[in-house]
Amino acid sequence: MNAISITTRKSLMLFSGRAFPALAEEIGKYLDVTVTPQSAYDFANGEIFVRFEESVRGSDAFLVQSCGVDLNKWVMETLIMIDALKRASAKRITVVLPFYPYARQDKKHRGREPISARLVADLLRTAGAQRLMTVDLHTDQIQGFFDGPVDHLFAQPLLTSYIGQRYSGEELTVVSPDSGRVRTAERWADRLGGAPIAFIHKTRDPNRPNQVVANRVVGDVAGRTCIVVDDMIDTGGTISKAVKQVLEAGANKVVVAATHGVLSPPASERLAESGACEVVLTNTVSIPEEHRFDTLTVLSIAPLIAQAIHEVFEDGSVTSLFETG
Amino acid sequence: MNAISITTRKSLMLFSGRAFPALAEEIGKYLDVTVTPQSAYDFANGEIFVRFEESVRGSDAFLVQSCGVDLNKWVMETLIMIDALKRASAKRITVVLPFYPYARQDKKHRGREPISARLVADLLRTAGAQRLMTVDLHTDQIQGFFDGPVDHLFAQPLLTSYIGQRYSGEELTVVSPDSGRVRTAERWADRLGGAPIAFIHKTRDPNRPNQVVANRVVGDVAGRTCIVVDDMIDTGGTISKAVKQVLEAGANKVVVAATHGVLSPPASERLAESGACEVVLTNTVSIPEEHRFDTLTVLSIAPLIAQAIHEVFEDGSVTSLFETG
Amino acid sequence: MNAISITTRKSLMLFSGRAFPALAEEIGKYLDVTVTPQSAYDFANGEIFVRFEESVRGSDAFLVQSCGVDLNKWVMETLIMIDALKRASAKRITVVLPFYPYARQDKKHRGREPISARLVADLLRTAGAQRLMTVDLHTDQIQGFFDGPVDHLFAQPLLTSYIGQRYSGEELTVVSPDSGRVRTAERWADRLGGAPIAFIHKTRDPNRPNQVVANRVVGDVAGRTCIVVDDMIDTGGTISKAVKQVLEAGANKVVVAATHGVLSPPASERLAESGACEVVLTNTVSIPEEHRFDTLTVLSIAPLIAQAIHEVFEDGSVTSLFETG
Amino acid sequence: MNAISITTRKSLMLFSGRAFPALAEEIGKYLDVTVTPQSAYDFANGEIFVRFEESVRGSDAFLVQSCGVDLNKWVMETLIMIDALKRASAKRITVVLPFYPYARQDKKHRGREPISARLVADLLRTAGAQRLMTVDLHTDQIQGFFDGPVDHLFAQPLLTSYIGQRYSGEELTVVSPDSGRVRTAERWADRLGGAPIAFIHKTRDPNRPNQVVANRVVGDVAGRTCIVVDDMIDTGGTISKAVKQVLEAGANKVVVAATHGVLSPPASERLAESGACEVVLTNTVSIPEEHRFDTLTVLSIAPLIAQAIHEVFEDGSVTSLFETG
Amino acid sequence: MNAISITTRKSLMLFSGRAFPALAEEIGKYLDVTVTPQSAYDFANGEIFVRFEESVRGSDAFLVQSCGVDLNKWVMETLIMIDALKRASAKRITVVLPFYPYARQDKKHRGREPISARLVADLLRTAGAQRLMTVDLHTDQIQGFFDGPVDHLFAQPLLTSYIGQRYSGEELTVVSPDSGRVRTAERWADRLGGAPIAFIHKTRDPNRPNQVVANRVVGDVAGRTCIVVDDMIDTGGTISKAVKQVLEAGANKVVVAATHGVLSPPASERLAESGACEVVLTNTVSIPEEHRFDTLTVLSIAPLIAQAIHEVFEDGSVTSLFETG
Amino acid sequence: MNAISITTRKSLMLFSGRAFPALAEEIGKYLDVTVTPQSAYDFANGEIFVRFEESVRGSDAFLVQSCGVDLNKWVMETLIMIDALKRASAKRITVVLPFYPYARQDKKHRGREPISARLVADLLRTAGAQRLMTVDLHTDQIQGFFDGPVDHLFAQPLLTSYIGQRYSGEELTVVSPDSGRVRTAERWADRLGGAPIAFIHKTRDPNRPNQVVANRVVGDVAGRTCIVVDDMIDTGGTISKAVKQVLEAGANKVVVAATHGVLSPPASERLAESGACEVVLTNTVSIPEEHRFDTLTVLSIAPLIAQAIHEVFEDGSVTSLFETG
Repeated sequence: MNAISITTRKSLMLFSGRAFPALAEEIGKYLDVTVTPQSAYDFANGEIFVRFEESVRGSDAFLVQSCGVDLNKWVMETLIMIDALKRASAKRITVVLPFYPYARQDKKHRGREPISARLVADLLRTAGAQRLMTVDLHTDQIQGFFDGPVDHLFAQPLLTSYIGQRYSGEELTVVSPDSGRVRTAERWADRLGGAPIAFIHKTRDPNRPNQVVANRVVGDVAGRTCIVVDDMIDTGGTISKAVKQVLEAGANKVVVAATHGVLSPPASERLAESGACEVVLTNTVSIPEEHRFDTLTVLSIAPLIAQAIHEVFEDGSVTSLFETG
Repeated sequence: MNAISITTRKSLMLFSGRAFPALAEEIGKYLDVTVTPQSAYDFANGEIFVRFEESVRGSDAFLVQSCGVDLNKWVMETLIMIDALKRASAKRITVVLPFYPYARQDKKHRGREPISARLVADLLRTAGAQRLMTVDLHTDQIQGFFDGPVDHLFAQPLLTSYIGQRYSGEELTVVSPDSGRVRTAERWADRLGGAPIAFIHKTRDPNRPNQVVANRVVGDVAGRTCIVVDDMIDTGGTISKAVKQVLEAGANKVVVAATHGVLSPPASERLAESGACEVVLTNTVSIPEEHRFDTLTVLSIAPLIAQAIHEVFEDGSVTSLFETG
Repeated sequence: MNAISITTRKSLMLFSGRAFPALAEEIGKYLDVTVTPQSAYDFANGEIFVRFEESVRGSDAFLVQSCGVDLNKWVMETLIMIDALKRASAKRITVVLPFYPYARQDKKHRGREPISARLVADLLRTAGAQRLMTVDLHTDQIQGFFDGPVDHLFAQPLLTSYIGQRYSGEELTVVSPDSGRVRTAERWADRLGGAPIAFIHKTRDPNRPNQVVANRVVGDVAGRTCIVVDDMIDTGGTISKAVKQVLEAGANKVVVAATHGVLSPPASERLAESGACEVVLTNTVSIPEEHRFDTLTVLSIAPLIAQAIHEVFEDGSVTSLFETG
Repeated sequence: MNAISITTRKSLMLFSGRAFPALAEEIGKYLDVTVTPQSAYDFANGEIFVRFEESVRGSDAFLVQSCGVDLNKWVMETLIMIDALKRASAKRITVVLPFYPYARQDKKHRGREPISARLVADLLRTAGAQRLMTVDLHTDQIQGFFDGPVDHLFAQPLLTSYIGQRYSGEELTVVSPDSGRVRTAERWADRLGGAPIAFIHKTRDPNRPNQVVANRVVGDVAGRTCIVVDDMIDTGGTISKAVKQVLEAGANKVVVAATHGVLSPPASERLAESGACEVVLTNTVSIPEEHRFDTLTVLSIAPLIAQAIHEVFEDGSVTSLFETG
Repeated sequence: MNAISITTRKSLMLFSGRAFPALAEEIGKYLDVTVTPQSAYDFANGEIFVRFEESVRGSDAFLVQSCGVDLNKWVMETLIMIDALKRASAKRITVVLPFYPYARQDKKHRGREPISARLVADLLRTAGAQRLMTVDLHTDQIQGFFDGPVDHLFAQPLLTSYIGQRYSGEELTVVSPDSGRVRTAERWADRLGGAPIAFIHKTRDPNRPNQVVANRVVGDVAGRTCIVVDDMIDTGGTISKAVKQVLEAGANKVVVAATHGVLSPPASERLAESGACEVVLTNTVSIPEEHRFDTLTVLSIAPLIAQAIHEVFEDGSVTSLFETG
Repeated sequence: MNAISITTRKSLMLFSGRAFPALAEEIGKYLDVTVTPQSAYDFANGEIFVRFEESVRGSDAFLVQSCGVDLNKWVMETLIMIDALKRASAKRITVVLPFYPYARQDKKHRGREPISARLVADLLRTAGAQRLMTVDLHTDQIQGFFDGPVDHLFAQPLLTSYIGQRYSGEELTVVSPDSGRVRTAERWADRLGGAPIAFIHKTRDPNRPNQVVANRVVGDVAGRTCIVVDDMIDTGGTISKAVKQVLEAGANKVVVAATHGVLSPPASERLAESGACEVVLTNTVSIPEEHRFDTLTVLSIAPLIAQAIHEVFEDGSVTSLFETG
C-alpha cells in the first residue's frame, strides 16, 4: 500500500493565560469545553514557564488572554504560550485578546516614537499566532497591523441594547469626550435610534504647545440624558471631566459607557464621584471586587466571544453576528 | 594586501514615475539634482517597461510617483521601478508617494473586505522599498502598515499659513465635513490661533442601513468665515454639500482647504458652484489645466518634499521640519 | 470535555475578477458551482473596491482573473481580492491566471531593467496566494519565480489536436517566428507526428545595436502547410511578418496558432491581412467581438482549467492530464 | 450551488532518500505502507535529480534520510526532495533525519566560525520542510534552531533497556568520555537505577592553547562494569581512549554505548581493539557490513520512528512515547 | 547634475532602557559618549511609552538593557525602543543585553514546553534588532538562536583574573554545582593554570520522576580552596547547597563565582550564610544596595562592553579581546 | 557628547572556497588583494569546517567558489562560508559562482520534479548572501530566481573575440546543438558579424515518449567553418554528436566553443575524438591536467570577474563592461 488514508478530524481546544482565567472558563462553559490544564508559574526572577498537561497535537487552539494589570507580563506569557503551542504541533493557533494591548500607541504622535500596536501584532505573528480575535479596537486600522485574519468583535450592540432598554423613553444625546471619537459617538447615535451627538472641544494655546486652555461642549446637551461613550477607561480622567462638563452644560443625567474597563487607580474613585448616574462596562479586562462601585454595571463579553469561536471553528460567518437581516 | 580600503561615499539620485514628472523635476530643482533619465513606455497590452539610462549602483535612490488618474497603472509602475532599482544595486530605496494610494481602504468597514492600504505597504516592501515618504495620510495609523521607516510630512502648516495670512482679522470657524475628521479640524483650529470648530452630523435611519436621513451642523458657524477642511477631495460631493449646509446655517463666507486635490469629475464643477469663495489645495496629485477653476489656489508641495529628502540624505532631522523651538 | 472534535470538511468556492467574468462562469458550469457573488467597483479616482457577499471562511478558494486590456488594473484587483480572501479566513487561496501578466519581462535583457515576471509572482505571494494555476507560460522558468506550487497547464494538446485533425493528410512544417522559440516548435512537431521544423533568423547589424538587417527562413517550407506557432500574439507584428516570409519562401498555406490571443490593435487587422488561412487561439484572454475576424478560430480553455481545479480540490493528479499511458 | 463541499481525508506517504533506503523500508513495514517509488540519480557532474513516480498532491509526506558517508550529498538530496514535494503540492512535509547533520557545529567555539547546525535547520525550512523529526540531538538546544515543531526522539531508553537487562546484577558506573557530556551520563545513571557516574577530565596547558597535557578519570570506576556513553561515535578516538583510561583506572569491564554509529575509519578498528567487551549502537546511520566487528551490537531505531510517525499522522502524542504513567 | 555625492559618516549613539541606567552611563563614560536623552514612562495600565529627544537618523545605535527585576517589562521596553529606533531611521541597531533573558528555557525539557530563549531572539529580530551583544550565555548554542551576528562576550577572564590573583598560592579546585556545567568548570580550571575539577552528582530515584535522592561530590575537594562556579545565581539554592556539600566533603575554603548576579530573594541571605568566604559576581544585572552583603564582591562589566562596542563601531575585532597572542 | 562621528570606510576582502582556489588567487592578483587566509577541512564523516583567520567585520566580502567535481560538497561549503561571514559581521556578502550549480534544473520538465536552480538561489539567500555574481547562466531567467541583485557576466565576448580573430577570413556558420539554444547561436552570429546559423533538430517518435528517432541539421553548413556553441559541456555527448553531424553534412571544419567546461568523463575523450579542430572553453570550472587534450584551448575568466568585482566595490557600472559606446 502506497499511502494510508483516513478522514481528517479537527478538535477545538481552549487555553487560558493567567491574567483572567475566569473569563476563559466562562467562555468554555458556553462552548461546552473545559480549559486545557497547564502548569504555569514564574521563576524567582520573573521568567514565565508554561507547559500544557495534555497533547495539543493537531488541535484548533484558541488561547484567551486578557491583558489587565501587569500588562507586559501577560503579553510575554501570551507569546510564550503561542510558542509552546506551535512547537507542540497545534494545527492552527488563534489568539483571543479581548483587550488589545498598546492599542493607544497606534501611530507616531510625534517623531521618534514607536508604533507599539503594530509591534504587538508582529510579535504575535512571530511567536506563531495565525489568527487574532479581539474586541472593539481603539482604532479600526489596528486590524491592518496583523498579517492574517482578524475577527474584530463589537461590544457596542451589547452596550447599546442594554442602555436602549434601560433608558428607553428618555431624550438621549451621545457625547464623545474628545474630538477624536465623534465618529464612534455617531455610530452609537445610529444604534440608539438617531439620537443627536455632541463632543468636548479642547482649545489649545497656540503659543504654548500641548497646553489645553479651555474645554467647550459642542452640540446640545441641556435637559437631556447624555451617554458619554469611549472605547476604554484607563484612569478615568478625561471621561469624568467630560461628565462634569456635560452636567455643567445643563444635562439632566449622564451615563458613561465603554467597552474596556481598565480602571487604573484612581479611575474607580473618579467615576464614582463624577456625577454619572451609571457606568456601564464589559469584562474584556478583569475588574476586581475592590475596583467596583455602586453605580457600576458590568456586562459579560463571554457569550459573544464563545459564539465567535464557535463560528470560527465551524467555518461559519462571524460577520453575520453583527449584521441584521 | 588582505583588503583594499577606501572611504565610502553616498550619492543622492532622483527618479520619477510617469504620472506627474513635473513634480519630480520641481523637487529636483530645489535639491539641485536632475531626475535620472530613463526609458519608460507601455507595451501594446499595457505592460509597463522601465530601464534607467545611467548606473544607479550604490545610490541613495529617491523615487517620486504621484498616483493620480490611472492610479493602478502608476502603482504597478512604482513597484516595477523599485524592482529595477533593487536589481541594479541601488543601496537604499526611498519611495516618495505624496498621495498614498488606497489610503481610504485602511480598515474593514464590514466583513470580507480587503485592507488595501496595508496591502499597498506590503507590495512596496516586497518590491524592495526600504523607506517611505508621504504627505498627510488619510489616517495616521497607515504609517504603521509599512514595515520600515516612514517620513510622514504634513501639508497642514503650508495650508494654515496661507489661510491664516489671507483671512487674518476675520472670525474663523474650522468645519469638519463629517464626524470622522473632527480631530483634524481641531488641529487646524489650534494652528489658526484657537478658532472654534464645528462638524456635519449625518443621522442615519436605524431601520434602513446606510441611509442618511438628515445632516445637521453641530457647532457655531453663523456670521463667521468657515474653513471646511479635509485630507483629500475626490469627487467633491461631501465637501460641496458641507459648504452649502454651512452657508445655509448662516456662515458669512466659506473657504475649502485640503491637501490632496484628486478632483475626479465632476469635482471641479461641484467646487466651482459650491458657493465657496476659495478652494485651496496642494499639488501632491497633478491638477491638469482643464480641472482648474477661478476660485482654485494650488500651493506647491515640492519645497517641503525637497527639504525632507535633503534631511534624509544628510541624516538630518525630518521631525524638526514640523516642530517649533 | 477537553476538546470538541468534528470531521473536517472542505468547500470549493469559485471567485472571478472583473476582467473576463464569462470565463469564470464557463469554468463554474463545468465544475457545477456558481461564481461567488461580490460587490466590486471603482472609486472615482480608480481605486478598486471588492467585497464578497457570502462567507468564505474555511473555503478552498479558486480566484480566476484574466489580465487582458487594462492589465495593470486587473493585476491590482487580483491582489486586492486575494487580500480580502486572506483576511476573510479562506483556508487556501489558489489564483488562476490563464494568461500570466508580464511574462515577457522574465529576465534582464540589459542592465537596470526589472524582472517584472518575478515581481508579479512575489506580489501574488505577499497578498496571500498560496498556489498558482496558469496556462502556457512564456518560458517554463517562470514557474520557478513563484515560491509555492504552480499548476502549469498546457494548451498545446488542445491546439495540436484541433490542427492535427483539421489539416490531417497535409504535409506540415512547424515554424517558429524567431530563434527563441524553436524548442517550442519542436514540441509541436513531435505532437504532430514528427513534422519538420523551421524558423525565422533575424540578422542584426553588428555596428548598429538592435538593428535587424534581414530575416531569413531557416528550414524547408516550400510547398508545405506551415503552422506558425507562438505562445502569445500581442500586436501581431512578428507573427504576420513571419507568415509573409514563409509564404514568400514558397509555403503552400500558412496556419497561425497561439495560446494567448492578446490581440492589441492592430493585431486583428494584421492577422486578417497576413495571408494566413486560419488563426487558432484559445480564450485565456477575452477576445471581444470587435477584434474577431473571419479566419479566427477560438478554442475554449475552460474545460481544461475546470478539470485541473477539480483535481487540485480532490487531491488528484494534474500531471496526469498531460501524460499519456 | 455556491460551493462544493466534501469530507477531508489525509494520506500518509513515505519517501526515502538514497543514503540508507533499507531504514525507510523497515519503517514502512512497521507502518504498513510502502516507500513511494521515485526516479533518483546523479548527473555526470554530481547534480542530483529526483522525480516521484506517483501523485503526492495533498499528502502528509514523511521523508526519511540518513546522512552517513557522502553527508553533503545527502543533505542536498534532502533539500531537493523537499522542494519537489512542495512544488508537487504535498500538504505537509515532515523531514525525518535520524542523525542530524552538522550537529556538532552547534555554536561558535571561537570567532569567525559558522553555526552550521542552525544553517541546516534554516535550509530545511527554506526548502519547504514544515516539521522535523530526529533522534538524540548532539545538544538539546538544536531543537530551538528549527522554526517549527520538532519531534525529538530518544534512543536512550532503547539502549539502557538493552544494557540494563544484559548487565543486570553487575555494579555499573556510567562514564562520560569528556566534561561536556556529564549531564548525559547522569541521565543514563538515573535510567540504570541510580548508578554512580564518572568522567574523563582533560587538563590543558595554559601556556599552549588547545594542548591537552593529561587526562584524569574523575569518579570511581575501579572494580566496576563501566558504561562509557556518548551521543555519537565518529572516528572513535575519544571514546577508545576513554575505554583504555577507564580500564587503566581499574575498571572490571567496559561497555560502550552510543546512538549514532557514524564509524568513520578507523573507528571500527579502534573500537574492536579498545578493550571494550561490547559496543552498542543503533542504526540511525547505515553501518555497512565491512565496518562491523565481533563485539558490535546494533539495535534498530525503526520501530521507534515508525511509532512516532504514526502518532504524528494520527495527531496522537509523541511525548507519551517517552513518559511513564 | 545627476547625483549629489558626499562622503559617508557614521555616528555611534548610546541608548539605555530604564532597568539599570547606571550601567549604560558607565559604559558611556568609557566610550566618551553620553546616553541619548529620552522620555520614557509607564501609562497607568502599565503600557510603556518611549520617545527619543534627539534625532537618531542614520545612527549606529547601541541599546543597553539589563533585564533584572520586572524582567518581562524590560523585555517589552527593549522591543519598543528597538521599534522606535527602526522607525526613526537608525542605520544599524545593536541590542546589548548583558544578561540574556529566558536563557534557561533554551530547550524543551519535556513535551509541550516553549523554547523561550529562541522566542526572545526572534522577538528582538522582529522588532528590528540587527545585531546582538551579550555576556556569558547560559549555553553557547543560544548564539545560534539569533538570525544575525552575535557578539558573545566572556566575563570569565575578568573573574578568573581576579580570583587567580586574590587566591594565588592556594591549592585550587574548580567545582561545578551540577553535572550540566562540568565543561564550564573545566574552562575555569584551564584559565587557573590547570586546577583539578569536581562536581555535584544528583542521584534521582528511578521510581519517582524528578525526585533527587542524594547529592554526591565527585572529584577531590578535601583540604583545598574550592571555587564553585556557575553562569548565574538566581535564588542561590543550588549553589549554597553546593557550598555546604563541598565544605562537608572537607574543603578548606569555598569561593563562589558567577557572571550574572540575579539574586532573587532569598539569594543574598542564602549566600551570606552558605559558608562561602567570598562571592564574586559582575554587574550584568543591577545588584541593589539591599541585596549586598559583606562577603560579596562585584566586578564591573562596563569596561568590557565599552571596548566591544568600540570595536564593533570601528569595525575592529571582538574576537581579539579574548584571544591571546 | 551625544554621538561619536567618524568617516565611514569600506574594505574589499576576497574569500575562496576549496573547489578551485587557483581561480580566486588569479582574481586576487588582478585586484591586488590576497585571498583571506582560513582554516577549512572536512571532519571524518564529511562535515565541513571553516574558520577565517582574520577579522572580517565590516568588510565588503566577495566569496569565490567554483562548483566542479564533488559539486554538492562545494555548494554546502559555500553556504557554510556565507554563514560564517554573516555571523562574523561582514557588511555585505557577494557570492561569486562562475558556474551556477543546478542551472539545468531551472524548470519542471514534468510533474513532481524540483526546480533546483531556484532552490539553490533561496539557499544562498537564506545563508546570508545579499548579492550574486555569476557567468553565462544556462538560461537568463535564473537571474530572477535570486531575490536580490545579480551581476550576470557574459563570457561570450571573450570567446567570440578569440574565435573571430583566430578564424578571421573564413566562412563561419554558428550551430546550435539542439533546438533550445538557437537564440544563443543567433547572439553569437551577431557578434561574429552576421554569420548564418543552423541547428540540430531532434525528431521524436510520437508513439514512444522521449525516444529520439532522427537528428537533422537545419540550415546551411556545407563547405563552411562551423562554430558549435553551447553554454556548458558536461559529458560532451550531445556536442560531439553535433560535431559529427555537421561534418557529415559537409562542413569544412568544426570548432566547439562553450563557457563552462565541466568535462565529466568521458567528455575529454569524446571531444578529442569528435573531429573538432579546436575546443574553446573558459575556466569557470577547474579543468585538471588529466582532462586536457591537444585541441583544447582554455581562456581565463579571471580578468572579467576581477573587473566586475572592482566595479561592484567602487559602485561603478557592470553593465558598461558589456556594452559598446
